[in-house]
Amino acid sequence: MKKISRRTIPRTLLYLRTLESLIKEGRYTVSSGELARITGLTDVQIRKDISNFGRVGTPRIGYKTRELKNILKDYVLPENIIRMVLFGAGSLGTAILKYPGFRKQRLKISAAFDKDKRKTGKTINGVKVYPVERAPEVIRKSRVDIGIIAVPSEHGQEVADLMVGSGLKGIVNFAPVSLNLPENVSARDIDLSIEFLALYCDTRM
Amino acid sequence: MKKISRRTIPRTLLYLRTLESLIKEGRYTVSSGELARITGLTDVQIRKDISNFGRVGTPRIGYKTRELKNILKDYVLPENIIRMVLFGAGSLGTAILKYPGFRKQRLKISAAFDKDKRKTGKTINGVKVYPVERAPEVIRKSRVDIGIIAVPSEHGQEVADLMVGSGLKGIVNFAPVSLNLPENVSARDIDLSIEFLALYCDTRM
Repeated sequence: MKKISRRTIPRTLLYLRTLESLIKEGRYTVSSGELARITGLTDVQIRKDISNFGRVGTPRIGYKTRELKNILKDYVLPENIIRMVLFGAGSLGTAILKYPGFRKQRLKISAAFDKDKRKTGKTINGVKVYPVERAPEVIRKSRVDIGIIAVPSEHGQEVADLMVGSGLKGIVNFAPVSLNLPENVSARDIDLSIEFLALYCDTRM
Repeated sequence: MKKISRRTIPRTLLYLRTLESLIKEGRYTVSSGELARITGLTDVQIRKDISNFGRVGTPRIGYKTRELKNILKDYVLPENIIRMVLFGAGSLGTAILKYPGFRKQRLKISAAFDKDKRKTGKTINGVKVYPVERAPEVIRKSRVDIGIIAVPSEHGQEVADLMVGSGLKGIVNFAPVSLNLPENVSARDIDLSIEFLALYCDTRM
């Protein structure tokens, strides 16, 4: 994976998703203006981002969809499969385990963990649910990249500590609580209430 | 609700969440440095954001947690309940229906819609699942603010069109597909693959 700036990554992934659906529709080229309309970003932003990847695109014709897709993939998609583990096999955890589209993006959940004995031992969408005590061992064995927190808020920090202790360097946190993490661990918070409230504020502007 | 800039809103919601947990821990004051450590934002950003809300905080003491919470609430939390409807009562939809913490933030899902006759007529966590054809009528009757898309990608645009046709002005889209929407509709995309891949890229930097 080559280096681009941290802020460019989510946008590049969005371009990639857009290019893939254009290719599916049989489109050979796309202009930055059209990419702007589809993604909701500005024309200028898109041209600037794509110029990071070298000289691609032809004035007045635009970008070749397949060529651009392959270039972007090289930058943002890893060569190997990204291995993830999930903590919390409740309704949110189950939805994440059943989420389609991970495989295409080289993402794979290798194991799930839960405290609840009614859940452990089960297999959800091909993924085994282990008792949470086995997490350190399972994580070390299967060379996991990312841990997902889908437990109730009050257990968020405890699970995060367990993940960090097991050597995980990336955490996606769905529990609506701020985690205290060491600096060498990257984290992303997905707080549904914040997303909905922020959208609501947008509609009032 | 008073006016602040669009970009400040999600951060303000994050401050609010942090202050609420500090208050629960019995804390009376907090410094911008500590808020920075907890939220992962910079000290400067936090002081700048909070200065938008008038003269709050005392040098070397910090902010009074309750006072700041009440001020921020006034800016970002609506006076009335925000009414939402959900499209797609599959595993992701069910997880959203069961998501805790909406009530505290004045968010309420009033109805769900699905195509599948095995799902319609059911009640999930107190919310009735209607056949999708009834959406325009139900949405107009219950004065809905936000629509949530949790259907498979291939039905994302069709559901978005139905929402827009029913007068919805805000859409949160969990389907990993870019939607074509009129300019007067606000939307937020939550694409789990993009979140996980972006985090993975972060851990490599």
